[in-house]
Amino acid sequence: MKKLIVGQSGGPTSVINGSLAGVYYEAKKKGFKVYGMVNGIEGLLQERIVDLDDYFLDKNNLELLKRTPSSFLGTCRFKLGSIEGHEDTYEKIFDILDKHGINSFIYIGGNDSMDTVESLSDYAASKKKKQNFIGVPKTIDNDLPITDHCPGFGSACKYIATTLREVIQDNNCYGNTKPTVAVVEIMGRHAGWLTSAAALAKDETGQGVDAIYLPEIPFNLDSFVEETKALLKKKSNIVIAVSEGIKTEDDQFVCELTNSNLLVDSFGHKELAGCADILCKLIKEKIGVKTRAITLSTLQRAAAHLASKTDLDEAFNCGKKGADLAFSGESGKMVYMNRVSNDPYKIKYEVFDDIHKIANIEKKIPLEWIDVDNNYVKDELVAYLKPLIQGEVKQIYKDGIPQHINLKNE
Amino acid sequence: MKKLIVGQSGGPTSVINGSLAGVYYEAKKKGFKVYGMVNGIEGLLQERIVDLDDYFLDKNNLELLKRTPSSFLGTCRFKLGSIEGHEDTYEKIFDILDKHGINSFIYIGGNDSMDTVESLSDYAASKKKKQNFIGVPKTIDNDLPITDHCPGFGSACKYIATTLREVIQDNNCYGNTKPTVAVVEIMGRHAGWLTSAAALAKDETGQGVDAIYLPEIPFNLDSFVEETKALLKKKSNIVIAVSEGIKTEDDQFVCELTNSNLLVDSFGHKELAGCADILCKLIKEKIGVKTRAITLSTLQRAAAHLASKTDLDEAFNCGKKGADLAFSGESGKMVYMNRVSNDPYKIKYEVFDDIHKIANIEKKIPLEWIDVDNNYVKDELVAYLKPLIQGEVKQIYKDGIPQHINLKNE
Repeated sequence: MKKLIVGQSGGPTSVINGSLAGVYYEAKKKGFKVYGMVNGIEGLLQERIVDLDDYFLDKNNLELLKRTPSSFLGTCRFKLGSIEGHEDTYEKIFDILDKHGINSFIYIGGNDSMDTVESLSDYAASKKKKQNFIGVPKTIDNDLPITDHCPGFGSACKYIATTLREVIQDNNCYGNTKPTVAVVEIMGRHAGWLTSAAALAKDETGQGVDAIYLPEIPFNLDSFVEETKALLKKKSNIVIAVSEGIKTEDDQFVCELTNSNLLVDSFGHKELAGCADILCKLIKEKIGVKTRAITLSTLQRAAAHLASKTDLDEAFNCGKKGADLAFSGESGKMVYMNRVSNDPYKIKYEVFDDIHKIANIEKKIPLEWIDVDNNYVKDELVAYLKPLIQGEVKQIYKDGIPQHINLKNE
Repeated sequence: MKKLIVGQSGGPTSVINGSLAGVYYEAKKKGFKVYGMVNGIEGLLQERIVDLDDYFLDKNNLELLKRTPSSFLGTCRFKLGSIEGHEDTYEKIFDILDKHGINSFIYIGGNDSMDTVESLSDYAASKKKKQNFIGVPKTIDNDLPITDHCPGFGSACKYIATTLREVIQDNNCYGNTKPTVAVVEIMGRHAGWLTSAAALAKDETGQGVDAIYLPEIPFNLDSFVEETKALLKKKSNIVIAVSEGIKTEDDQFVCELTNSNLLVDSFGHKELAGCADILCKLIKEKIGVKTRAITLSTLQRAAAHLASKTDLDEAFNCGKKGADLAFSGESGKMVYMNRVSNDPYKIKYEVFDDIHKIANIEKKIPLEWIDVDNNYVKDELVAYLKPLIQGEVKQIYKDGIPQHINLKNE
């Protein structure tokens, strides 16, 4: 019986276990025995391997897995490094794979993980090893090139849009009796994809967030104050979405400005403040209205209770496609999604075979999709995002909270 | 036709509009014409009055109202003040009520709002005015006495429990490869009810938050460091829930410690930091592990997408009971919930007639429900909380996000 091992790597998402479920489902169908490596390559090097049949022969558990956020197998940020100079590590990995009779290796992850896949595949080819290596993409940041978008991104967008809808409702409650500005900080250090999803919070009447600041556009503190003042002239209750990665014209992260001469006196110590805190302080000082800084933190990547059905289905399908490729003996390739039509929305699962190209490129928002003058995004970007948050996943509640499934203690 | 006016006051909740829906539903059934005051008493004094039939004759809109977080009518924090010295304001309110032919007045709110209800009722009695005044309770903080619990609290608990469940999943992802401590800050300045709901995040296997720090128990920074160290000896990934209101033995809020000599040098400026930030910094400095501060902020009071069905039903029923009392001509009374049985959970809606008693008392967690030695809560408290988060409310999604209903521009 052929054997396949699957691992998860990098930051978790709400649906990365959906891809794991897809790998397991399809690999079993193809006749594989399926193992999981605990904490990715790092755990594999310690031979921390689990038999996934112990968990998922029961179909109910596979459904629970699809609804469990974060990495069921655990993750790592282990950098394998180039083959040259790290031969020992590579050799050890293959020794372990050989010892357990593994034929195929699937890694679910982002840029770095894809690099690992290609390196292992290259090594296998050069040393005539029998194993083949396949990458399945994931990242809430949506910054992988080639693929139209990444599994994990849509659910994070749905969380951001829903949460901002609710923040807008909350922020409006004092109406004209008390002007308020809420600044909501959203993940994405270099690319503004997640922050742009704030535009999806708009309701039928057009009520939505009032401004969106992305890392793709240099950020100016004085302009920000003036733009916020202008918004407050039109309405009393303002909600502003900012990326954690916004930078000034001279390439300083706003979240690090408290360390600079510019702001250190009035803003205190850098390590305690995120950029939402800093911008709220600025508004309070310069405009004098009530502010509230809200940081979505890890909630945006872990809120499986708000997963997008489209996203979860795609994560599952990417996993399935990965197992399919593994079965076919392909190696050094990554599954990706090709949007063949937007209306109706239609995705084709395809195969990319030059993974190194993916590993070190961060896909940013095209500038022509950003409405710089209005600190907002253009309709094209909204049209790109909207299909990704469609549909809801029925949760399995127990005692009032969604149920998850976890690894037993090793 | 008799006329009733209803208002909302104080901080919003996920289900305060459920009570508004209940008032409207029952008042209509009793033959009232129903108006809403915009931004509570403050708006009433400006005659900002809307005809609720314009919105809710359509039953679908009443269902949307029940699913809309924050105060549909807008809120205020207007303190009416004692009658003596504020006769002009009282007289103005009654002039406006008379002008619009209002017979009954219902106010949905917390402690201060109940005070308003009683004062208006007292004034009406002393001046032989025809209007009667009824209070319907709400608060996420659950600090109102008399009532077993408050509408709004259960949904906030469900949000907190679900979110912490997901935070625990996320925090576990690196397993033993990277010790991590997440500190989650939860609302509740004086009472720890909301923070105690973190205990509900425990799953079937017993995996839950590792410590809960409540404002009812004095907080010691050194003990906190030692206790966290002890937890890290047992497992690598720790999640700690803290109330924003935790105070040191000498009665200082931890969130204000950055201003004291004790911490100012190492922690910087007070206004930028919440207590989760401060505690994370402390752990990082004293223990040296990776930390993450998460502040649930207004999300916990606005997350209608995670409303508890039990809570929403109770909010609706409290509103209905309020309209019922108004119809009977009662005045100066508050609806409250009496838990007649916990298993099966059963609530009776009753009437309390000495509202002043409610207005200035904050109900805290009984000390015998707190497990001080283990920084946790006792089973009795969990048994109290659990029924309040049961059941889910089917949202009405459009374009991937839940739909809400809002006041048209006046």
